[in-house]
Amino acid sequence: MNQTPFLIGFSVMALASLAIYATGKKTAPLRHHTLLHASVPFIAATAYLAMAFGIGTLVKFDGSATYFARYLDWSVTTPILLSGLVLVAFHERGRTGEVGGYLTSIIVLDVLMIVAGLISSVIDAPVVKWIWFAWSCAAFVGVLYLLWAPLRAIATQRGPALGAAYTKNVAFLTVIWFLYPIVFAVGPEGLKIISDPASVWAILVMDIVAKVVYAFYAAGNVDRALGSDAEVHAGRA
Amino acid sequence: MNQTPFLIGFSVMALASLAIYATGKKTAPLRHHTLLHASVPFIAATAYLAMAFGIGTLVKFDGSATYFARYLDWSVTTPILLSGLVLVAFHERGRTGEVGGYLTSIIVLDVLMIVAGLISSVIDAPVVKWIWFAWSCAAFVGVLYLLWAPLRAIATQRGPALGAAYTKNVAFLTVIWFLYPIVFAVGPEGLKIISDPASVWAILVMDIVAKVVYAFYAAGNVDRALGSDAEVHAGRA
Amino acid sequence: MNQTPFLIGFSVMALASLAIYATGKKTAPLRHHTLLHASVPFIAATAYLAMAFGIGTLVKFDGSATYFARYLDWSVTTPILLSGLVLVAFHERGRTGEVGGYLTSIIVLDVLMIVAGLISSVIDAPVVKWIWFAWSCAAFVGVLYLLWAPLRAIATQRGPALGAAYTKNVAFLTVIWFLYPIVFAVGPEGLKIISDPASVWAILVMDIVAKVVYAFYAAGNVDRALGSDAEVHAGRA
Repeated sequence: MNQTPFLIGFSVMALASLAIYATGKKTAPLRHHTLLHASVPFIAATAYLAMAFGIGTLVKFDGSATYFARYLDWSVTTPILLSGLVLVAFHERGRTGEVGGYLTSIIVLDVLMIVAGLISSVIDAPVVKWIWFAWSCAAFVGVLYLLWAPLRAIATQRGPALGAAYTKNVAFLTVIWFLYPIVFAVGPEGLKIISDPASVWAILVMDIVAKVVYAFYAAGNVDRALGSDAEVHAGRA
Repeated sequence: MNQTPFLIGFSVMALASLAIYATGKKTAPLRHHTLLHASVPFIAATAYLAMAFGIGTLVKFDGSATYFARYLDWSVTTPILLSGLVLVAFHERGRTGEVGGYLTSIIVLDVLMIVAGLISSVIDAPVVKWIWFAWSCAAFVGVLYLLWAPLRAIATQRGPALGAAYTKNVAFLTVIWFLYPIVFAVGPEGLKIISDPASVWAILVMDIVAKVVYAFYAAGNVDRALGSDAEVHAGRA
Repeated sequence: MNQTPFLIGFSVMALASLAIYATGKKTAPLRHHTLLHASVPFIAATAYLAMAFGIGTLVKFDGSATYFARYLDWSVTTPILLSGLVLVAFHERGRTGEVGGYLTSIIVLDVLMIVAGLISSVIDAPVVKWIWFAWSCAAFVGVLYLLWAPLRAIATQRGPALGAAYTKNVAFLTVIWFLYPIVFAVGPEGLKIISDPASVWAILVMDIVAKVVYAFYAAGNVDRALGSDAEVHAGRA
């Protein structure tokens, strides 16, 4: 496998981590968003460095590859991205238990979605492969339900501008996250319609959009909402 | 190995997850208990699906099996169940640091209990096997100490009815959790007095009691306590 | 490999865990520090027990050993130690989201530092080994930056005595943690200047200082600071 996309991924993610921290707000209430979003590409950079050297890469009998580093990366970065959304929804008002309940349930569904995807990737028998793909999609539906139904209602109660910013961020993530199971399904781990290099390049672009572009987009939306949403400001003081 | 008990486990756990969420309270202060208890059988369902296909199942030289999916399931579900108890004990009053201290220490003991059990299961040499079984039991004693001594005192301070509900829930979990090391000790991973299918069926029943029956029992107790415990209600407002 | 240092490590850590809990403060606001610091050597005891029996020990082609139990221990104990420092910095005032942002980012950097160190240890090719060692050091720089810059500023705002106690604790950990990459670099996993037994004994002493001596030192500093720092006391009530 060509190292180029992995070395590009490493460089972009490492620089993005520094850039998100350097340009992000360093004062409450946005400081923790800066920290969360700067952590995400640092993890991705480590995963791309591993893939560049073939560390954690399993080439199967049919010649297709499973990149364990990817699944490990996702099982930590996607919970951090979801935590950012949960914290926006509860903007500075959630009690430890309540926020913890939502964080636990959405992270459980999210990590099982990724674990089920990994099992689907390494399994050879088609029936078993697609059962696990379906189970992964079921967990994804659970994640989307929590994001769009109860958490969106909680965000909207915090103020109309914050609710709108939350909805924009969730919409962005929902669209980009939908591409991952599609690329998986048509790629070498699934129906083998597209090749391994095509899949690697596609996921590289998607990773940069979901982790770097999203970080700037999400911070901008929340920042503007806090500026215009008097109720939220009052509640924060 | 017969797939039947695993497929029953998958179906019961998947349906129980939906049922716990559908019938549980969706408003504060019980909403997060509903979310935590619905997450637990979803994880168990995934583990049973893996065991049904032999994923993560290690058959050793003596013919006995270690189901890694079980230990992975337990290392996430038991911390969630313990978190639910810690959150009841601190009912809406704990500060982040204090709750975090109890959560960290009880989860550390609990996960090491499970890891030590897994090592005991895969080790062949009897002396080493039983040293790890003893270390697992030592960690279990630590979990029980935290549940019954400091956390019970904290729960009782929150109000008499809440203290009583906490004690009922801990008593239920203590009894059912005691059965696991016993079944392990007499089963194929220990003294081999009972067979692998007998052990699988026994753990299936215990899992359903500890994860599903307990979810309804625990939510009912806390709900009734919050209704009758005026002090707690006042403190919550 | 001689079992002696591992059995000494197991015994010291197991007794230290009990001693830290038995002698530590059991009332707020220091109770959770007692719990966190008692958890740490319990985990280390389990890792030393594993190393004593060769569990998770990989002897490589060149005869050098990688002790996976160590890296697993560190990937849980160092986040707990860092959490203790973050909780001192935010002493009872941090909101869930803010504390969570710092905890997440410092734990991400810390765990990646350990994972990169593990990869460096198992890789044979010198260039790749030292690239991962450098990446591990980059993550360590990130951990030190967060501890010494933003978190130290937050601790100092809480009161001068608490700020001084925080700084003493961070200085202690910084010095002892600096020794680990040095021992790694000169030891059998790196330049092979010192032998495996020498490295094992050195790390045993360092582990006891970083986990046991530090626990007593850190609790003493915070306890004295809370006694003398009127502002902090007032803020706590």
